[in-house]
Formats: sequence, C-alpha cells, structure tokens
Amino acid sequence: MSSTLPHVRTRLKDLADQAGVSTATVSRVLNGKAGVASETRKAVLAALDVLGYDRPEKLRTRSEGLVGLIVPELDNPVFPALAQSIETTLSDRGYTPLLCTQSPGGTTEDEYVEMLMEHGVDGIVFVSGRHADTAASRDRYHRLRSRGLPIVLVNGFAEGVDAPAVSTDDTVAVDLSLRHLASLGHTRIGLAIGPDRYIPAQRKVAAFEAATLRRDPSAVPGEHVVSTLFTVEGGQAAGGELIDSGHTAVICGSDLMALGAIRAARARGLRVPEDVSVVGFDDSPLIAFTDPPLTTVRQPVDRMGSAAVSALLSEISGTRVPRTELLFHPELIVRGSTAPAPAASPVAHLPAVGAGGR
Amino acid sequence: MSSTLPHVRTRLKDLADQAGVSTATVSRVLNGKAGVASETRKAVLAALDVLGYDRPEKLRTRSEGLVGLIVPELDNPVFPALAQSIETTLSDRGYTPLLCTQSPGGTTEDEYVEMLMEHGVDGIVFVSGRHADTAASRDRYHRLRSRGLPIVLVNGFAEGVDAPAVSTDDTVAVDLSLRHLASLGHTRIGLAIGPDRYIPAQRKVAAFEAATLRRDPSAVPGEHVVSTLFTVEGGQAAGGELIDSGHTAVICGSDLMALGAIRAARARGLRVPEDVSVVGFDDSPLIAFTDPPLTTVRQPVDRMGSAAVSALLSEISGTRVPRTELLFHPELIVRGSTAPAPAASPVAHLPAVGAGGR
Repeated sequence: MSSTLPHVRTRLKDLADQAGVSTATVSRVLNGKAGVASETRKAVLAALDVLGYDRPEKLRTRSEGLVGLIVPELDNPVFPALAQSIETTLSDRGYTPLLCTQSPGGTTEDEYVEMLMEHGVDGIVFVSGRHADTAASRDRYHRLRSRGLPIVLVNGFAEGVDAPAVSTDDTVAVDLSLRHLASLGHTRIGLAIGPDRYIPAQRKVAAFEAATLRRDPSAVPGEHVVSTLFTVEGGQAAGGELIDSGHTAVICGSDLMALGAIRAARARGLRVPEDVSVVGFDDSPLIAFTDPPLTTVRQPVDRMGSAAVSALLSEISGTRVPRTELLFHPELIVRGSTAPAPAASPVAHLPAVGAGGR
Repeated sequence: MSSTLPHVRTRLKDLADQAGVSTATVSRVLNGKAGVASETRKAVLAALDVLGYDRPEKLRTRSEGLVGLIVPELDNPVFPALAQSIETTLSDRGYTPLLCTQSPGGTTEDEYVEMLMEHGVDGIVFVSGRHADTAASRDRYHRLRSRGLPIVLVNGFAEGVDAPAVSTDDTVAVDLSLRHLASLGHTRIGLAIGPDRYIPAQRKVAAFEAATLRRDPSAVPGEHVVSTLFTVEGGQAAGGELIDSGHTAVICGSDLMALGAIRAARARGLRVPEDVSVVGFDDSPLIAFTDPPLTTVRQPVDRMGSAAVSALLSEISGTRVPRTELLFHPELIVRGSTAPAPAASPVAHLPAVGAGGR
C-alpha cells in the first residue's frame, strides 16, 4: 500500500542501478549521511522520482525561496520547453519556481506580477513578455526595479530597463537560414514573420533586409517580408502570399509558422521541399517528427535557461550582473523541408484558381 | 512610446473589429461603465491582449484567490495543453492559477503542496500526480483533506480519497482503438504502455486483456502487452518488441510512444501504415503534422479542464461535489498511421540483422 521503501534490498538495488551508484551510496543518501557529493545526492533523488518512490521526509530540502516565471502561453511548444528548462535549473539551485502562463482575456502579466510580489518572490524571469513588445510601456519594469526586485528578461531586450537580458541572436538565425537557402540555389527568398511590434520580429526583419540589400542593391524594402502572426494560421497566410509572389523559399519566424507555410504550399498543389523550401525557428520538441521533418534554427533553450537563472540568482544574492544583453548563437538543424531550388519558378505550376493570400 | 491608448480613434476601431463589437461598446468597457454583459467585457479584454495594448489599471480585476495546479512535467505535450486549459478556465472564473511542474530530482509534488499551502491557496488541482501511482501513499491526500483544503484529481482515480475526480475513460480509448484496427483486418494487435503502477496504464491493460480474451479465449494474458515508459524511447522499445513478435498493429499509451513505435517499424525496414499500423493516445498539439499524421485517441482536454475547475470551485464555495469519478469519453481521430492489415506477417520482411527489442 504505502511506499517509503519496504523490500529494502530490491529497492536499494533498483535505485543504485538507476542512479549509476553503489547500494552503499544509495543507503548513505537515504539516511542523510554526510560526505556525499551533491551531484551524487541529486542522482539518487532523481532515481527515487523516476522509479516513483516517495522522497523520505527528512531528505526534503528547505526551499531557498520563490522565483516567478512568466511566459506568454503554452500553445507554442517552445514556451513549455523554456519554462521546463528554467524551472529545472531553479529547482537544482534550491529555489521553488512558480510558473505563470497567460491567455487572451485571462490573467495578465501585470496581474501576475502583483500576485507574485504579494507572495514575496525573490525575483521574476520574464520570457517574451511585455518587454519584447515595443508598443508596451516599460514603466512597469522601472517600477519593479525601483522596488528592488531582481528581474531577468528573456528574448526581447528592453533598452533602458535595469535588468540582465538573455536572448537568441536573431541576426545569426536569419543569416544561417539565408546562407543555407542561397547555397541550395534559391534567389527568391521570403520572410514570414509575426507582428512587427515585437523586438525579435524587428531584429529578424532588419537582418533579413540588410542581407537582401547586400545581395541585390536594387531590392525594395518590404518586398520579401510578410508580417502576420506567429501561429500556424499566420504562417499559412504569410507563406501563401510569398509563394504566390514567386518565392521558392520561405524563412519563418517560428516552427508553427513553418508548418502553416508547408500547408500553404500543399494547398497550391506544390511539394515541400521539391517546389518550395521552408525553414522554421525554435526547433520545438516533436518538430523532428513532422512531414517533412522540419529544417529549422534551434534556440539553445537549456543554455539560455541556465544563463537566465544564473543571472537572476546573482542579482538576488546582491552581485550585480552586467546589463549587456547575452546573445546566444542558434544552430541550423538541416532536415527534410529544404532542397535545391526548382529549375523554374513554382508560380508556373500554379493551378488556374489561385488560393489567395490574406 | 507608451501605450495606454493614444490615437484613441484608430485603436477603438481596431479593438472593436477584433472583439466583434461596436466602438461604443469598447468605450463603455474601457471606461468601466456598467451594463455590459460579462462575455462582451471579456471579448474586449481579450482584444486588448491580442493586439498588445496594456489593460487600463482600473479594469484589472481583483483576484478571487489562488489555485495551485500541479502537473508532472511539460515534456509530454498533453500536459501543457491540460495546464493551459485549466489555467484559462480558472482565469475566466476570476482565480489566479499557479502552475507547478516537476522534473526528476527537482521540486516534488509534496514540496509544491507545502509551498502552496504556506501561500494560502484556496484549492489544488492535481494532474496525473502521485494519486495516479498505485505505488505511492495516499496519506498525503488524506492529510490535505483533513486540513480542509479542496482538491481535484485529474487522470488517476484514487479510491478512498475524499475528492472529486475527472478522467479520460481508458476503457473506451482501448475499445475504440481495437475496433478500428479489427475493422481494418488486423488480428495480431499489441499494446505498448507505460509503467503498470499507474492507474491509466492498469486500466488500459485490463480493457485490452478483456477484449483480447473475448476475441480469443485461448489467449495468454500479457502475451500482447509490453510495458516500458510513456516516452518516445519507451514506445520505440515496446513497439519494436511487439513488431518482432509478429504484431501488425500497435496501440500506444501516449502519442510520444506512438512516434517511437513508428521509428521502431522504420528501423526494421517496415512502412507505416502499409506494413504496421500505429494508434496513439492524447491527440497532443502538433500531432496532426507528424509523418504519417497520427491516428490517435483524443483526450477531451478542454471539457476535462473545465469540469475539474467547476468541481474545485464548487468545493471552495462550500458546495460538496459527488465523489464519483467523472469519466470523459475520448474520440478516435483517424489520420494516416493506420491501414488495412498486410496480407502476410511483416516479420517475413525483416532484414537478417534484427534490431532487437529492449
């Protein structure tokens, strides 16, 4: 019925196998003996969790404190991935994470912040929050800082806010995608992106326009960029518009947009990657299983989560962290949604009845 | 620079369009006037959020209270989906949700519960928690109830715990999968499932064994069931073992397991669905985009989230909810991973060097 380690011998053996340590070490940890390395202790605790044993009460660690983590919503799978990474790092460092997620019309970032302050959090990590939206006021962050609360901003540097910032380098992301597509012979390359009031969207558009001008000094700004939403439907609309205007390759602002762009191509009777190449952004979980497996730019989620937590905990302990934004280099993951440019423009193959753009 | 509605006329129009109401109604809501239906008010607030405008301070609603929501981890995409649904419903009802997620070796369910109690939550929703693990003690839930805290258990009924429970009907899920595969002519059907100490796994195995015995009274219990883990790797191991023993169809305990079973088939040079059919469980977000698009059994996430929140809020307001488990009927979503049974057993096509099971 109960759990706290009856059949001691078998369970010690199972735990030792799972944790990759000796049964003697498992015993030492379970009995709270000193002289066990903290990594080893953690491996034994993880083995208890994985095998489903309750953690003995005396092994419970007293929390160092609460840290709030505010993310936009969980629909885009990169947000749960970032949240999971930041929470795991916080737990490893002895803090209890409190995750706040949003939905349209639901609890807002500001309401969450008030609640977290009332409950005495030691700091807050904002992931793609109002700080990333240039239309939003930054006063809220100035107010928080004036109350002395340490905060860290992830993906969306807010100039002038007194806080460490951790972001994926959007310029590198666009350059990696463009170089990959150019090496495949694509010359008509478009960018499908979310609302241009967001910092990451602005940075990607700027990088894209600069590179396009370098390649073709007569290019008209905006000619190859369509802004919609960061969702599947947004990608379908933007991707469709770019395909209809003769682009053979579409770089997308998120993996969800890329899935939408693939849909748009297929709705026009075109094949991905033979007729149209599509590059995503995020490398969300499961995205390797899509049809075709998505070529995408991976945000280094774990390294970013770990850097954000380190910066926050330094600030909490009173050590000021430099205010320069930490830019993380993303990696291009080449899978099956990109291929050499088709000989002729795919527009030639368009069915008579064109499925219009937005 | 700032945000709280300059350019009033354009913004009113944008908000009205987004919310599907008149500009006069938007004005009434923004000015906190009475006589606006709560649905309308909510639509306007959602429009503010979607368009990225800050919500005017006077429109912030005072929270009714805090509700804790404890989920296992965010790696399986059905957990973020359930969390998002429950949080949205809580926000709609005026409560502030606090999401607690776990990872091996990190903050445990018990530690989260202590923290939530210290911060005065009004209730806790447990999703696939220790209550679903028959190896875990239920004393923790009895203790919570004796302290008077309302709780609701999702997916994993714990007999004897004084709390409302909301689950997907695992028996119906297995029966739907079996009937679909039998109608396609499959006779060698296996079940790839997670650890059998979990209630949902036990229920699926029981339903599967009962149906197998009905079809073939001489069947040996356990012959067609392989238990591993609810992950991609678990599905790959279990699926591989079932394919190697001549099964032409594999029912999986999660969509992640189904993706692993497809990998196992391909590693053996077999095609899905031509040689092997695979059925998932959950219908996680993005699973319609996999290769092939996954045939799966959909958990009615939104209806379950809404029922769990209603039950909890009734208990919080002092109205006792019946203790019978609410079982939600799942739906079979037929996509591209299932097809008529191949004429001969796929084992015949196995390459000489078999990729072994576990």
